[in-house]
Amino acid sequence: MSTPNNVARLPGFRDFVPEDLALRDRLFDAWRRISRRYGFLEYDGPPLEPLDLYTRKSGEEIVGQLYSFTDKGDREVALRPEMTPSLARILGERSRSMPKPIRWFSVPQLFRYERQQRGRLREHFQWNVDLLGEAGVAADAEVLAVALDGLREVGLRSEDVRARVSDRRLLAALLRSLGVPEERLEAAYGVVDKMEREPADRILESLTDPEGVGLDRGAARRVVELFEVPTLDGIEASFGEREEVARSLEEIRTFMSILAELGFGDFVEFDLTIVRGLAYYTGIVFEVFDRRGEFRAICGGGRYDDLLERVGGEPLSAVGFGMGDVVLGELLKERELTPEYRREVDFFIVSIGEQQLPLARRIARVQRENGRSVVYPLRKQSVRKQFSAAAAEGAREVLVLGPEEVGEGIAVLRDMRSGDERKVELEHLLEVPEPEAKDALPERMRS
Amino acid sequence: MSTPNNVARLPGFRDFVPEDLALRDRLFDAWRRISRRYGFLEYDGPPLEPLDLYTRKSGEEIVGQLYSFTDKGDREVALRPEMTPSLARILGERSRSMPKPIRWFSVPQLFRYERQQRGRLREHFQWNVDLLGEAGVAADAEVLAVALDGLREVGLRSEDVRARVSDRRLLAALLRSLGVPEERLEAAYGVVDKMEREPADRILESLTDPEGVGLDRGAARRVVELFEVPTLDGIEASFGEREEVARSLEEIRTFMSILAELGFGDFVEFDLTIVRGLAYYTGIVFEVFDRRGEFRAICGGGRYDDLLERVGGEPLSAVGFGMGDVVLGELLKERELTPEYRREVDFFIVSIGEQQLPLARRIARVQRENGRSVVYPLRKQSVRKQFSAAAAEGAREVLVLGPEEVGEGIAVLRDMRSGDERKVELEHLLEVPEPEAKDALPERMRS
Repeated sequence: MSTPNNVARLPGFRDFVPEDLALRDRLFDAWRRISRRYGFLEYDGPPLEPLDLYTRKSGEEIVGQLYSFTDKGDREVALRPEMTPSLARILGERSRSMPKPIRWFSVPQLFRYERQQRGRLREHFQWNVDLLGEAGVAADAEVLAVALDGLREVGLRSEDVRARVSDRRLLAALLRSLGVPEERLEAAYGVVDKMEREPADRILESLTDPEGVGLDRGAARRVVELFEVPTLDGIEASFGEREEVARSLEEIRTFMSILAELGFGDFVEFDLTIVRGLAYYTGIVFEVFDRRGEFRAICGGGRYDDLLERVGGEPLSAVGFGMGDVVLGELLKERELTPEYRREVDFFIVSIGEQQLPLARRIARVQRENGRSVVYPLRKQSVRKQFSAAAAEGAREVLVLGPEEVGEGIAVLRDMRSGDERKVELEHLLEVPEPEAKDALPERMRS
Repeated sequence: MSTPNNVARLPGFRDFVPEDLALRDRLFDAWRRISRRYGFLEYDGPPLEPLDLYTRKSGEEIVGQLYSFTDKGDREVALRPEMTPSLARILGERSRSMPKPIRWFSVPQLFRYERQQRGRLREHFQWNVDLLGEAGVAADAEVLAVALDGLREVGLRSEDVRARVSDRRLLAALLRSLGVPEERLEAAYGVVDKMEREPADRILESLTDPEGVGLDRGAARRVVELFEVPTLDGIEASFGEREEVARSLEEIRTFMSILAELGFGDFVEFDLTIVRGLAYYTGIVFEVFDRRGEFRAICGGGRYDDLLERVGGEPLSAVGFGMGDVVLGELLKERELTPEYRREVDFFIVSIGEQQLPLARRIARVQRENGRSVVYPLRKQSVRKQFSAAAAEGAREVLVLGPEEVGEGIAVLRDMRSGDERKVELEHLLEVPEPEAKDALPERMRS
């Protein structure tokens, strides 16, 4: 792609030529439309933030992958790897005076720097949806409904994707009751996170590792057994007498029934192995996957009730998710749900001779003021070349200005799909619209 | 803004809370709408590029202000300070196979790092419009028309703004004929650029400075005289016999007359002092200012026929402009042309008791599937609180679910502006739309 004389683009970054933007626009439009349908308001922040903003909340695995550097003013800064810390910072300055709950969304570009792997990007766009100031589980359900509606809006059905849902409080209660000490919970989450991908003996090993979770073999085996039939009923039968487990189970059931009322019952499954990488989650967590399991997670989120206070804001319960454009784009391509790219303008104006060019420009002016997209040749060209330019631009109609017709006060309008031609009066084409009545053209010419 | 416990945002960067996005959205929408009306297609590139991309074209004044750094892979990189080099890079890989002319636009966020001044930002968004592969002056006029139409679209008139236009070839020809040697032309451009802001004796000094333009006092005085009545007719009378001057004057006149045909005659003025800072311009250059002269340039652009070849692409003539969101935003605020921010949802559903919440969610589901924006309370709340939440959300209508009415199969719909109330059947509210007929609600409920 790069020749010695060329400056190549940086590895892991994408260009978006118009064909590529068709898919991105489709995602962004769907994300914005659905966000607004649920009453969420858009916000944005800077792509560059103080490094501190990310080290403060100590999601270690992300800090190691930061696209960070020292700027010319000797500040430690980072290209934002996720949006939630910026959201917390922005709200920290103003949330106290805002009515609750706060429903905000954003579509930022995010960055990370890790050792370059084949096809692994260093940037992506991510739909971020957050609901703050409401601690009840109805907020969690509403937020996951937004994510699932966003996926439905781009053509995915419950046969295509599923949301796997768990609750960190439930998992903690279960692990505690199986003998995992409080200070080893984080380590245990890490092991649970790998359960799906690693063989049982490796899992047992990590659970008994004194440097890891440090359980005895009996307790470790009971943890593994827990994940063998991890249904809500199964957990209730074995652990339902513990109050914190019972409370958690009831919350998850309420969460599920609300999602059913909101039309997403078929999309949602309880799955105790879902823990989410980031350290700041405090309650319900979820990830959305394609049902065939061919792709990485499409979306992840959950409740994070402590984060705002930790970055200096008001203590504010919060739940949110992020959905990236890359994995979702791959899934849509595989399912043939990507939009067809089509160039399109309303008119191309063909001038038979150079003398008609000023008239072409005057018509272009009026029709553009009418809201139509219009292209005309920028220099004298053969009629054949002009028609092929019109085709390349995707012109729906071509207006032909010939010297004789123009002398008679008319032009020929050709529908490029049907090939039909008809005459139009120049007078009509040049009628400057009244501010109120922007449709001066004869009916036939409206798109 | 920042307390000891707070992480502050970086100096020179902006947050965009929903109120701020109203103006940004208005600009972006207008820019995209107008670009498409002229047949331009949107593209985008990475916010981070190799430093090389900017040093290669040696626009020195920009290189000194780059937000540049060394990344973790020891690459010299920079946050993009302008879009044209990225455009040249992207097209360098593919322009040969594309039909000409190429009409592309973009709305990137751009960055610079200079010593922090009060209110001076380190980022802004810029509308970039470029037309490539057409060397004739009709392309220059078309591109300036796009810029001016973009300004008209946000409410500015020819009484508010003017485009000042010059031509580097004309200026070079005139300076040459007044004795400025070829290798001092760049230095002379720098002096011309300052003519408006500096007193005549300072200008004379720079023109005669042996380290600067190095003219003798007679020649220097003739240069200053040139700018005393720099009309096209005046220049023609004095220098019209020189062929390159005559050719340039004819081009500028054609350019002006095309802009008049396109409806922008009143916006455009010839102004020989316009040279543009960047080194890569090769022909017509222009800047748009507010007529009262209260703000910096709103927009700048011109022809740059050598740039693509210089960054390794096909030799391709080009003309384009950039228009930032900051100065334009200031002007719109001063003229009271900024959009009013208003939160708005179609419905807020009030539940008199907790028992109506599941019904509220089922109605929300159906109405959202109908394309409407719907908010309902996420927990049991007093009716008074729910109505004030509805007002805060900007609900156009409130649907009240009371136990008695629900028992009778109805709900009460209140228009929040008029206060009018009427009864609606729950059955209608719960009608899941056919994919074809997305309007299942009674006429009165449509927004």
